[in-house]
Amino acid sequence: MPNPTIEWSDGTVRLLDQTLLPHTEKVLAITTPEELVDAIKRLAVRGAPAIGVAGAYGVVLAARRYGTESPEFEAAVSKLRTARPTAVNLARMVDRAASFAAEGPDRILEEAEKIRREELEASLAMGQLGADLVLHLVGDRPIRAMTICNTGGLATVERGTALAVIQTLHERGRLAEALPLETRPLLQGGRLTTWELQKMGAPFRLLVDSAGPFLLSRGHADVVLIGADRVAANGDTANKIGSYSLALGAARAGVPFIVVAPESSIDLDTPSGDVIEIEDRGPTEVVGFNGTPIAPPGTLAINPAFDVTPVDLITALVTEKRVVRFDRGEKI
Amino acid sequence: MPNPTIEWSDGTVRLLDQTLLPHTEKVLAITTPEELVDAIKRLAVRGAPAIGVAGAYGVVLAARRYGTESPEFEAAVSKLRTARPTAVNLARMVDRAASFAAEGPDRILEEAEKIRREELEASLAMGQLGADLVLHLVGDRPIRAMTICNTGGLATVERGTALAVIQTLHERGRLAEALPLETRPLLQGGRLTTWELQKMGAPFRLLVDSAGPFLLSRGHADVVLIGADRVAANGDTANKIGSYSLALGAARAGVPFIVVAPESSIDLDTPSGDVIEIEDRGPTEVVGFNGTPIAPPGTLAINPAFDVTPVDLITALVTEKRVVRFDRGEKI
Repeated sequence: MPNPTIEWSDGTVRLLDQTLLPHTEKVLAITTPEELVDAIKRLAVRGAPAIGVAGAYGVVLAARRYGTESPEFEAAVSKLRTARPTAVNLARMVDRAASFAAEGPDRILEEAEKIRREELEASLAMGQLGADLVLHLVGDRPIRAMTICNTGGLATVERGTALAVIQTLHERGRLAEALPLETRPLLQGGRLTTWELQKMGAPFRLLVDSAGPFLLSRGHADVVLIGADRVAANGDTANKIGSYSLALGAARAGVPFIVVAPESSIDLDTPSGDVIEIEDRGPTEVVGFNGTPIAPPGTLAINPAFDVTPVDLITALVTEKRVVRFDRGEKI
Repeated sequence: MPNPTIEWSDGTVRLLDQTLLPHTEKVLAITTPEELVDAIKRLAVRGAPAIGVAGAYGVVLAARRYGTESPEFEAAVSKLRTARPTAVNLARMVDRAASFAAEGPDRILEEAEKIRREELEASLAMGQLGADLVLHLVGDRPIRAMTICNTGGLATVERGTALAVIQTLHERGRLAEALPLETRPLLQGGRLTTWELQKMGAPFRLLVDSAGPFLLSRGHADVVLIGADRVAANGDTANKIGSYSLALGAARAGVPFIVVAPESSIDLDTPSGDVIEIEDRGPTEVVGFNGTPIAPPGTLAINPAFDVTPVDLITALVTEKRVVRFDRGEKI
């Protein structure tokens, strides 16, 4: 990739502004925790692992700006923790970085860099374990893989989660075609996943979201691979809105449905998906597109950013450490 | 409505150009069958019943222009018949109008006007039968009704099919809320159904397509109402892409899923949905939005305009004449 998704450089957090992709590649240089909260909220950086890393860097910015024993530091950490409500990584990585507050900003930075390195290694491992599982389930032949949202290097540090599996299949010469869903309302699939697939030279065709389940019913894909914003203790998985539809379609078509997510996305404190809070991002994203109005003025909307797929519709969970075969009754 | 969807006036077919709604209301005055084929192809007029009426008027235009015994007339009728491949109404109404060719253009026009009148009466009847069925299935209380695409007056002549049921519920004081899906790629739900709901003063909130199944799982709707482009003899139903996802979601949530379509949409020559040809409208609609590029240049797409919902996921079919309760084993 020409620009890394997120990195620390010379006292600033450098982020590729994902709201401008695929047409413009602009790097933001962020120096305050408040700017970072804003970048997370407006999805300039997104994807559970990436915003976990961003949150940890945010604690460094807060410590440098306010000292670690001030109320301003506490307030900044609290705002970072809650900049997005659904992904568990954000709160967890903010807390992990903040737990070194007593040792000062340099120690917090060291921890944030460690978090970033761990995410990168996790992506490599998920790609390998996931590709092995797909070829085991489907057979060792060219794979047509459907996916939703963006779960690639842009959602993590490099490579990603579900898209890391597709990239690994491609590197092994076993990818017939990727089938990304465009992922309304923010079109992360249409804008970002397509951009990453092009960069890796993988063959792909784009779909509108509602075409996914139907094309599964007509045999167009061998596997569905999705990421996760949060995996509950029982395996229920919160992920981008549209994941649940794909799971229903995959179950009916008998196509394996695989969740790929780092261990850090598993939340043992959440017993099941029923209790996961779903962020409603308000009507603006739905009633217009990139500032162009679609619906008549005054139109209201329901805009759940995520949905919850019950574990009975999930074939397996792949993390950087293990494969949990829900279809065989295995538990997390 | 300020302008009728489609009417014959003074030797021309007058169409409200639906590609410009909801922001601009422009009426096209069409005088040749070739212009009409173009208007049908680019969806200036759309919805199975409306394009059936349009096709019949097209035969009148062809008869007036070329006489009814010329090869040009035959060619024009053939192009009208096949301007869209999925909806059965188009070919059927073109054939019905053309069957009066020997009696001259005035007789063809008389038949086309009769087709238009029948569609209007059918909409009124479907609205009543459908509202009765919904209140019977759900209970006589305010109804939250989810729907997809545009099945209102714009898709027919007035009132429509599935949206006629919602309108009738509203007129009876039994509509709590309509939940239209935006219906990518062409956004007929976001642009047209919202516009019609506003005109009728009905409460509604817009959803992205992939939110439908999830919101059903969380109890946000009491019924799903869809139209049909073609109903096969066994009840399998071809309708706008995304209908199948909603049917999967409704079945899992135990919410009634009702198809509302005139008898003319039933095709007894099509034994089941497996053999219905699905129109692929090419990549342009998917890789961009209203002319704004979304995906990187060179992106390919699969763009099925319709999907097929198997009859086992459909609670009932409502036509202008009857209710067929598939959930009780009734047959067409």
